Amino acid sequence: MKGLVYHGPFEVSVDDVPDARIEQPTDALVRITITNICGSDLHMYEGRTDVEQGKVLGHENMGIVEEVGDAVGRVKVGDRVSLPFNIACGTCANCTKGLTGFCLRANPDGAGAAYGYASMGPYAGGQAEYLRVPWADFNCLTLPEGDEHELDYTMLSDIFPTGWHGVELSKMQPGETIAIWGAGPVGLMSAHSAVIKSAAQAFVVDHQPDRLRLAEEIGATPVDASKGDAVEQLTELTGGGVDRGVDAVGYQAHDPSGEEKPELVLNQIVAAVKPTGGIGVVGVYVPQDPGAENELAKEGKLAFDFGQFFFKGQSMGTGQCNTKNYNAGLRDLITQGRARPSFLVSHELPLAEAADGYSHFDKREDGWTKVVLHPAA
Amino acid sequence: MKGLVYHGPFEVSVDDVPDARIEQPTDALVRITITNICGSDLHMYEGRTDVEQGKVLGHENMGIVEEVGDAVGRVKVGDRVSLPFNIACGTCANCTKGLTGFCLRANPDGAGAAYGYASMGPYAGGQAEYLRVPWADFNCLTLPEGDEHELDYTMLSDIFPTGWHGVELSKMQPGETIAIWGAGPVGLMSAHSAVIKSAAQAFVVDHQPDRLRLAEEIGATPVDASKGDAVEQLTELTGGGVDRGVDAVGYQAHDPSGEEKPELVLNQIVAAVKPTGGIGVVGVYVPQDPGAENELAKEGKLAFDFGQFFFKGQSMGTGQCNTKNYNAGLRDLITQGRARPSFLVSHELPLAEAADGYSHFDKREDGWTKVVLHPAA
Amino acid sequence: MKGLVYHGPFEVSVDDVPDARIEQPTDALVRITITNICGSDLHMYEGRTDVEQGKVLGHENMGIVEEVGDAVGRVKVGDRVSLPFNIACGTCANCTKGLTGFCLRANPDGAGAAYGYASMGPYAGGQAEYLRVPWADFNCLTLPEGDEHELDYTMLSDIFPTGWHGVELSKMQPGETIAIWGAGPVGLMSAHSAVIKSAAQAFVVDHQPDRLRLAEEIGATPVDASKGDAVEQLTELTGGGVDRGVDAVGYQAHDPSGEEKPELVLNQIVAAVKPTGGIGVVGVYVPQDPGAENELAKEGKLAFDFGQFFFKGQSMGTGQCNTKNYNAGLRDLITQGRARPSFLVSHELPLAEAADGYSHFDKREDGWTKVVLHPAA
Amino acid sequence: MKGLVYHGPFEVSVDDVPDARIEQPTDALVRITITNICGSDLHMYEGRTDVEQGKVLGHENMGIVEEVGDAVGRVKVGDRVSLPFNIACGTCANCTKGLTGFCLRANPDGAGAAYGYASMGPYAGGQAEYLRVPWADFNCLTLPEGDEHELDYTMLSDIFPTGWHGVELSKMQPGETIAIWGAGPVGLMSAHSAVIKSAAQAFVVDHQPDRLRLAEEIGATPVDASKGDAVEQLTELTGGGVDRGVDAVGYQAHDPSGEEKPELVLNQIVAAVKPTGGIGVVGVYVPQDPGAENELAKEGKLAFDFGQFFFKGQSMGTGQCNTKNYNAGLRDLITQGRARPSFLVSHELPLAEAADGYSHFDKREDGWTKVVLHPAA
Repeated sequence: MKGLVYHGPFEVSVDDVPDARIEQPTDALVRITITNICGSDLHMYEGRTDVEQGKVLGHENMGIVEEVGDAVGRVKVGDRVSLPFNIACGTCANCTKGLTGFCLRANPDGAGAAYGYASMGPYAGGQAEYLRVPWADFNCLTLPEGDEHELDYTMLSDIFPTGWHGVELSKMQPGETIAIWGAGPVGLMSAHSAVIKSAAQAFVVDHQPDRLRLAEEIGATPVDASKGDAVEQLTELTGGGVDRGVDAVGYQAHDPSGEEKPELVLNQIVAAVKPTGGIGVVGVYVPQDPGAENELAKEGKLAFDFGQFFFKGQSMGTGQCNTKNYNAGLRDLITQGRARPSFLVSHELPLAEAADGYSHFDKREDGWTKVVLHPAA
Repeated sequence: MKGLVYHGPFEVSVDDVPDARIEQPTDALVRITITNICGSDLHMYEGRTDVEQGKVLGHENMGIVEEVGDAVGRVKVGDRVSLPFNIACGTCANCTKGLTGFCLRANPDGAGAAYGYASMGPYAGGQAEYLRVPWADFNCLTLPEGDEHELDYTMLSDIFPTGWHGVELSKMQPGETIAIWGAGPVGLMSAHSAVIKSAAQAFVVDHQPDRLRLAEEIGATPVDASKGDAVEQLTELTGGGVDRGVDAVGYQAHDPSGEEKPELVLNQIVAAVKPTGGIGVVGVYVPQDPGAENELAKEGKLAFDFGQFFFKGQSMGTGQCNTKNYNAGLRDLITQGRARPSFLVSHELPLAEAADGYSHFDKREDGWTKVVLHPAA
Repeated sequence: MKGLVYHGPFEVSVDDVPDARIEQPTDALVRITITNICGSDLHMYEGRTDVEQGKVLGHENMGIVEEVGDAVGRVKVGDRVSLPFNIACGTCANCTKGLTGFCLRANPDGAGAAYGYASMGPYAGGQAEYLRVPWADFNCLTLPEGDEHELDYTMLSDIFPTGWHGVELSKMQPGETIAIWGAGPVGLMSAHSAVIKSAAQAFVVDHQPDRLRLAEEIGATPVDASKGDAVEQLTELTGGGVDRGVDAVGYQAHDPSGEEKPELVLNQIVAAVKPTGGIGVVGVYVPQDPGAENELAKEGKLAFDFGQFFFKGQSMGTGQCNTKNYNAGLRDLITQGRARPSFLVSHELPLAEAADGYSHFDKREDGWTKVVLHPAA
Repeated sequence: MKGLVYHGPFEVSVDDVPDARIEQPTDALVRITITNICGSDLHMYEGRTDVEQGKVLGHENMGIVEEVGDAVGRVKVGDRVSLPFNIACGTCANCTKGLTGFCLRANPDGAGAAYGYASMGPYAGGQAEYLRVPWADFNCLTLPEGDEHELDYTMLSDIFPTGWHGVELSKMQPGETIAIWGAGPVGLMSAHSAVIKSAAQAFVVDHQPDRLRLAEEIGATPVDASKGDAVEQLTELTGGGVDRGVDAVGYQAHDPSGEEKPELVLNQIVAAVKPTGGIGVVGVYVPQDPGAENELAKEGKLAFDFGQFFFKGQSMGTGQCNTKNYNAGLRDLITQGRARPSFLVSHELPLAEAADGYSHFDKREDGWTKVVLHPAA
């Protein structure tokens, strides 16, 4: 079958790869209908991880069940399914508490597994024609039959739940204000989520006009960081600070001069959020970052404004989204027309053009907000 | 009346001070029966704050209501009351959400006020014969008549709720493991709380044998940091990490060589707590610390291991305790004999000997765990 | 001043009544700008309560602060304020937990007080030119200056929070289905709330076409109980049952033949809600009902389908709304244009025509959904 | 193999029955070491259910894994395991939310399955030498190796979690008061749980002196209902009412004259619990009860004091325990010596004497509090 293979920094290509197949009685084999390129795929693409060469990438997958193992009972051949990017066993101490992003059994190297991802276990990704899905009864989210809302449902495997998770981690209540740093795909999904969850106002901080425009279109209030200090703008707009903050940027934050400053966004959030406010962090931070520009950052540390954070009595939640906690409810919001995450999709490509998609998306070229791939196209 | 006055670093004395009196119709005047010296009083004593000279210190106060203002209706003359260290108006946006540690009206300089404390508003402390209590109907916790459990109830004004708050912020559930850094008064109160809230095991990390002994006496498991790396010990004791962690040390953490390392405890907690675990921070961190030993710390920043924290998907809650959220329940646990925080009291002194008490307590002399003062003795 | 006075069943009139005035230092005097007639005012109007003759009615009040007592500090003369229908002291054991609908001090006869209401304490209502507001710093919700959104903000004193409370009590999560029994004012506010809180679908059960039409206009799905069994319709529409249910009808439920059947709605909800689902009850039930049609109901009892309720593992929350828990957030949603409860208002009358308003509204005349009174008109 | 078989009302015997065996790749076969007789087994024993003749009873089971199916990966042969009485698939919409007592796949007849139980699916019970355990990776709780705490761990399959669930459903917080109706096994487990969870006081209402004595021994306060009205006693003991209530009696409640009155306990709880208090119901109620003494009860209805319940703004949670939500934490409390549910065990019998055990236990003979069976004895 065809799959998008990582060959080294900035080198990916669609190659012939071994066919995905049922390996365990709890597996399903899924024919991929849509698979997205994720911002975190770019960490691998840029060589900022230790992902092995030859790996098929892709963790944002949906498709049709082609075949199931002997022990699969809930999911049926022909079901249209969305696959959470986290691969979870469903029976370990973490999975049974809903912490499926930190499954203790799926990844021999630590808590948490994913398709086609560095350090997340030996699983091939879904930027391919077929995908092997372990523990299929647990991991498959069944979608309504047919092909309605394809471009919305494809956001259920990762970024819509991840954006939603950011807002959850911030503990936002209806009627509160929230500011989201980063108008990339996750940040825009957080903004969409915050509006759906009835923020009084959802601010989005970024400096790219096209992305800020999208934020505005979905009911958020753009804050253009290129036009002045974001903290000052937010403080003025709200008369004193926002109730909640979301970091949808992560460790590759840059200051206005273009220097990478991993603590920049976090310290801005601490400054902009009111005393007792909550902060959700879904932008990725890493324990080691050999390519980082300073010594602290190389060991995954950063100069966090902890004194202010404590003094203000703020709280913070972090980490990978436990996709299964949210994806069924979000599916139903899409089905009923109350959520429309497809607004994000800027480009639909056949799988064969995936390498091009990576290249454009990685350069954050104007208008390349979100790329989805169609293996059958 | 007599009161303990701050005159500069390491200089306090019991002097004649202006009588406390009713100033507002919502005030009560309380005759202090017990008032404790708090570990955070030592921050002022040591000159690490900008508290003004001449201030009467003391925020852990209880006593008998002597007089009430015209607008006081719930509290009566003769009531025995405990006074939360946070002074709260009861009607602002924070107070009505239970965030009384961050009252928006009591302190003209920011969110949150306290008796006799640096930067926490213009209020005299209670290490004195009498205390003016603002918004008395809101702030006074009524205790059972008589004089039973005096040494237990006196812990309700601050450290018992603060210790409890640390455990709450960590989101510990019954049957989980928890490790508490610091066997000072707050850490021991966190340990007492964790045992009462049915931790499967509550570990206490410290290097002072007398304090670790106290921890053991109340049902916690001591971890002697002078005998080996605390993280390694905990990992071994639990077979992989604790579910929850509490920082009851704060920014004056020291490494084994005696150097102040404000990030030391936090980074140990991140290392020792399992993925998805929660961390409660009640040890004090400050936004500016001119006396700090390194540049980052002077601005309240520290080299936090954020990469690990995020990768493990941990959460963190911080800040001053909102005492009123807990003190009524803890009072009832004391009254019914289910909590006994008085185990901590090592010394009872008359007010006249308060300066001596500060001096011994500040040196962390062996056995000086907690000092309470009796103004009437 | 003028006020709407209760003189006996179906007899109310606007009379000269004693001027409202500051009685306690914690009081404010508010000039009423809008005051609504509530469905629960009709319980008194119809003689189903023991309200005393001569009482000024009206518990849905807003206006401008004219004067404040000596102990009032947060609220200022000239502030535009909404007044929660519950009068709460702010300092008792219930108020400090946010249970302001069950204040232990405001009502000498039991937990919970209100303006102008049977058994809820000796307080005059606000269907009048002026209102005395006890514990004003605690009870007044400050609104933005000016006169924008008057018809929306007037819903903050009772029915918008009460409708919202019904949804909260049902524990609905975004993406779930919910059914609300009763398209009266509270039911429609529950529907508005459920839509704002992102129900996948919010059903409203009623048999009056004009009210069902309003439900549809705000994004809910009408279920016409006159066209077939509501439980069967819901089961079919959802493929098996709703996740959550709200009772916005109360003890005066009627069966299709017009007979009063107080258990009717509750048992329908138990039948229509899925196993493990939650139920919120904000329709009023009373401990004694001498006017009831059967023996059980006279003592406030009803033939509840408890076997089914338990077998399905459902949960239920009930009772008066603690308005202060919600009104600030809902105010901000209105201010930002994200909530618009004024859709409910069908009639605006000068106070002088209040008796007429009662009469039309009590007959549930077509189109008389919600009446607001303007004392200054 | 040998198993305890139901042959009709009051007729059970230990017979040769078909060997339990692996039927699905997700099954495990467990050799039973201890299996208890549950109070709810008596509903079947007394002929109050429609359980089929020939069924092996027993849903409180623990033992050693003898064999596993091909798809079982977490659980290993030789593991010592406790088996939640609810059989759950682990992958349906309810199981993935933690609602394992209401699994949508395990029972073809409705939500929720169990071993050896009326209407709970086609599963043989564990009062036998061996037991087939479906979805073994999900359902087995692994216990520490060896044979320590056998009599404590055997309570993890049902009544310790069920008792704990009652307290959870009541939403009790540390420091609150709680009253538990029924000092049978579940009631005593609720009392043990309430003490562990730091109730200020846990009251137990019953009229049997031996059971009340047990309640007192574990730190609860007995309320002897044979010595006066329970509600009056509680009101006096607490100065006004308890914060929380638990119904551990169910539909077979009797009034002092011995008449069955299914609403008796519920209405007492509503009367004894304070306004805004919470009620947990774990005593069993049934949707139909053909053997009931009055017409309402035959249809599972009862004359519930809903007026009072609503007026007091109480909440109620009900239903079967989702055992998996609690059993791991309770296991760890047992392992650490912080819980000791074995205090309940009054009789240990070999399986061969099981019929005798049923007979004595059913007569509630003095001292027959809880019977455990040893199949290997």
